[in-house]
Amino acid sequence: MTELLSNYLGGRWQAGTGAGAGTALLDPVLGTELVRVDATGLDLAAGFDFAREQGGAALRALTYRERAALLSAALKVLQANRDAYYDIATANSGTVKNDSAVDIDGALFTLGSYAKLGDALGDKRFMLDGDMARLGKEPLFQSQHVLTPTRGVALFINAFNFPAWGLWEKAAPALLSGVPVIIKPATATAWLTQRMVKDVVDADIFPPGALSVVCGSSAGLMDQLQPFDVVSFTGSADTAAVIRSHPAVVQRSVRVNIEADSLNSAVLLPGEAADSPAFDLLVKEVAREMTVKSGQKCTAIRRVFVPEALYAAVAQALSARLAKTTVGNPRNDTVRMGALVSRSQLAAVREGLAHLAGQAEVLHDSSQQALVDADPTIACCVGPTLLGTRDARGSDSADRVHDTEVFGPVATLIPYRDTAHALALVRRGQGSLVTSLYGSDAAALAAAALDLADSHGRVHVISPDVAQLQTGHGNVMPQSLHGGPGRAGGGEELGGLRALNFYHRRSAMQASTAVLAHLQTPA
Amino acid sequence: MTELLSNYLGGRWQAGTGAGAGTALLDPVLGTELVRVDATGLDLAAGFDFAREQGGAALRALTYRERAALLSAALKVLQANRDAYYDIATANSGTVKNDSAVDIDGALFTLGSYAKLGDALGDKRFMLDGDMARLGKEPLFQSQHVLTPTRGVALFINAFNFPAWGLWEKAAPALLSGVPVIIKPATATAWLTQRMVKDVVDADIFPPGALSVVCGSSAGLMDQLQPFDVVSFTGSADTAAVIRSHPAVVQRSVRVNIEADSLNSAVLLPGEAADSPAFDLLVKEVAREMTVKSGQKCTAIRRVFVPEALYAAVAQALSARLAKTTVGNPRNDTVRMGALVSRSQLAAVREGLAHLAGQAEVLHDSSQQALVDADPTIACCVGPTLLGTRDARGSDSADRVHDTEVFGPVATLIPYRDTAHALALVRRGQGSLVTSLYGSDAAALAAAALDLADSHGRVHVISPDVAQLQTGHGNVMPQSLHGGPGRAGGGEELGGLRALNFYHRRSAMQASTAVLAHLQTPA
Repeated sequence: MTELLSNYLGGRWQAGTGAGAGTALLDPVLGTELVRVDATGLDLAAGFDFAREQGGAALRALTYRERAALLSAALKVLQANRDAYYDIATANSGTVKNDSAVDIDGALFTLGSYAKLGDALGDKRFMLDGDMARLGKEPLFQSQHVLTPTRGVALFINAFNFPAWGLWEKAAPALLSGVPVIIKPATATAWLTQRMVKDVVDADIFPPGALSVVCGSSAGLMDQLQPFDVVSFTGSADTAAVIRSHPAVVQRSVRVNIEADSLNSAVLLPGEAADSPAFDLLVKEVAREMTVKSGQKCTAIRRVFVPEALYAAVAQALSARLAKTTVGNPRNDTVRMGALVSRSQLAAVREGLAHLAGQAEVLHDSSQQALVDADPTIACCVGPTLLGTRDARGSDSADRVHDTEVFGPVATLIPYRDTAHALALVRRGQGSLVTSLYGSDAAALAAAALDLADSHGRVHVISPDVAQLQTGHGNVMPQSLHGGPGRAGGGEELGGLRALNFYHRRSAMQASTAVLAHLQTPA
Repeated sequence: MTELLSNYLGGRWQAGTGAGAGTALLDPVLGTELVRVDATGLDLAAGFDFAREQGGAALRALTYRERAALLSAALKVLQANRDAYYDIATANSGTVKNDSAVDIDGALFTLGSYAKLGDALGDKRFMLDGDMARLGKEPLFQSQHVLTPTRGVALFINAFNFPAWGLWEKAAPALLSGVPVIIKPATATAWLTQRMVKDVVDADIFPPGALSVVCGSSAGLMDQLQPFDVVSFTGSADTAAVIRSHPAVVQRSVRVNIEADSLNSAVLLPGEAADSPAFDLLVKEVAREMTVKSGQKCTAIRRVFVPEALYAAVAQALSARLAKTTVGNPRNDTVRMGALVSRSQLAAVREGLAHLAGQAEVLHDSSQQALVDADPTIACCVGPTLLGTRDARGSDSADRVHDTEVFGPVATLIPYRDTAHALALVRRGQGSLVTSLYGSDAAALAAAALDLADSHGRVHVISPDVAQLQTGHGNVMPQSLHGGPGRAGGGEELGGLRALNFYHRRSAMQASTAVLAHLQTPA
């Protein structure tokens, strides 16, 4: 039997007590069992209380700077164990090294960023929000808004595709805010999350109750939430709906952050010739986004909008790039793209692809290509596929491409008539995490970006002058907001210090200027 | 038959087409029928589309300054018709002039405040959110967050107690943001809301579709909401739960703002003698909050915390004040407190009072006092009642006082042992809109205010130096946040320009510095 991963809750390691062997985590390339998880029989109420009472009080007693120092200490521990995380990612996520880096190094970079931001907040335990506002003609009775940490726990129900980054991009702002966290990683890839938490817990960095991890079923977790707790979920729209309609949210006003489905897009603006720098930048970025982590990124490009006259040229250039993608066992150095996470995800991708293809032509199909060092009857690998809606009329009539997120190496090329048409088609995604724009006219890029801003959490603009500097359509930078309206769930994460808002409560203090003066000194 | 109020939707006045006579609005003092409402048969889908498409596009084409000018024009119209609003309030809300002013003049003041704030935003159509952040060592590729108006409608489902203020405190920030509004006032007092909208619509100030009103049943309204719409609700926790679990919110990520029940509190800090200035300020404020609008304010003081040694003295002083409250027909100049809004509210208050009294002693009871110029079998009037938990041990064992909001002239006096005990008891409200603190030690007041900040949307501090300047525990100032966590619904309204956030979407623009430079000039 493989190792049964322990849960850390209530300040101690606890094995699940289920009658069976728990749930096995598999290698998606080799099909072998790696470890097992089980959350059966945990005293969740006691665990949440411990985090809320012990963990919360201890964290709130620290200043932002002190908490930031703990984040730095955790970062050092993670850096020291980085090789082990890559090994786990190879085995459990089936990703090539470059793709594991997006998750692991992305996590470390984000954690480090919040350590730096927190240090700059200094020796305070709350934040002022804006300036004092007079509540009369004389400045003697005024209003000062403050942000103080919520006295609850932060429950994270995370997705399988970012076991490392998904943990720390949420935990770093929460812990920095003074709010204890309880992480429930997706079962399929829970190993890396659990190991990172274990390493940090073993190093005895955070106060007891500050950091907990539950691996296995999420049953009963939401039931524990009280009015001052918060919950952050990344995953499917269906599960998001279950969380949003839970009594904790509906009746107890538990604050919820959702990041769900997203039909992200890339748009080549009009006026760029075939093989122009902007054209090449689009082709390169789309091919990369389709294949990084086998397209299993919530930010990956699913819809590619190009002027009708360039449809064939883009199709050809993209196909040529995609044809070079070797797929298979990530342990083989010639492999560029590893596996999907599971056989069920592989089946879902094939099903989604067939659904999309019902309204599109196939421009490039590597879905049946031979795998390197991998058995196609076992490995969860699939090559990239590019679809297309053929002409602008086809773009208008197709609806599936705007509604169906296929979570794999799949994108659809969509020709448009003019800029207004392109922007209208982009909007049919009903709210997305990110769109990227490609062009060389700064004014036109800025205008299109502004037009799409309200329906996207992020607009990424790639112009030739930043070809080498741009940070990537799909890479989530801690400086920028991550989230999106509508279908994307309506959530907000990261964005520098904005991330701390979710874990703080805003309050208006109306008082004499003499009383408010006491808020200016560290407390 | 009395007048059937018309609905304004789809850019035209439309009468409901129900088979019956609609729903009658009554005079809560005289019991007479005033007007009727009916929303039956309206084409809601067409009306919402009209607002979303026509109203939204027209508003977004204006700059903040231009929209602010429209708010100013609306304010002038309302000021010109102010007397009529007072007449409607007297008849339909049964409030004395001072209490009608809280609603009507509060509405005008808030509208004027947003006109001023909007003018200062200048000739722009979006707002920058923070500064640019580098996404690399050199400042060539950066992130700039922007706030742009959401392309949807704002649906307001409002409460009966503030037909004027409840309309404009929400509509002003929405319209200023460029978002069309559809108001569904509570039926019992819909008349004043409808009249104000009618006056502004007749004056032809806002573009078609910007301002709509639906009077009568709310059936079907939530079904109209699309991903970029928002809904703001003020009312009971039960209805709030229905709204939060509606598919529009759960599945379509419609943004929702809730202001629900709240057990607001007042705390006299330790160290103040009986009849000291702080003591007197508490007594005066509590008596006022209990009786203004017959206690029908979501911000009214329900729980009064005092040091155990002062329990009897506060009970006596408060009772003496309350005994002076003449209750009855607001048309009689000797009357200080008018009616509750309806017989059903009167029944609910009596029921709630009996429930609370099961765990408390009655310190002052005017609930059976004779009414001035009003028939007790018809008028919805009731005098104030003060309850008390007797001693600190009683304060610990009583739970109803922390859980049951009686929406009338009722409060409970709760003695505490020390500051920590007082703060813990306040927290048993599980999140409130506002708490007020009374004392003369600035440092102690600031410390207590900070401690309670995370569980309150507003902390109002009354010290002797601001006795004449303080704006009132229950008065909601547009400069300050209005809302509260947990039981209070978790919403945020007002707070100056913070109110605009609900109607804007935040987006991170990542681009070359040359592209971002175009955001610095008005668009």
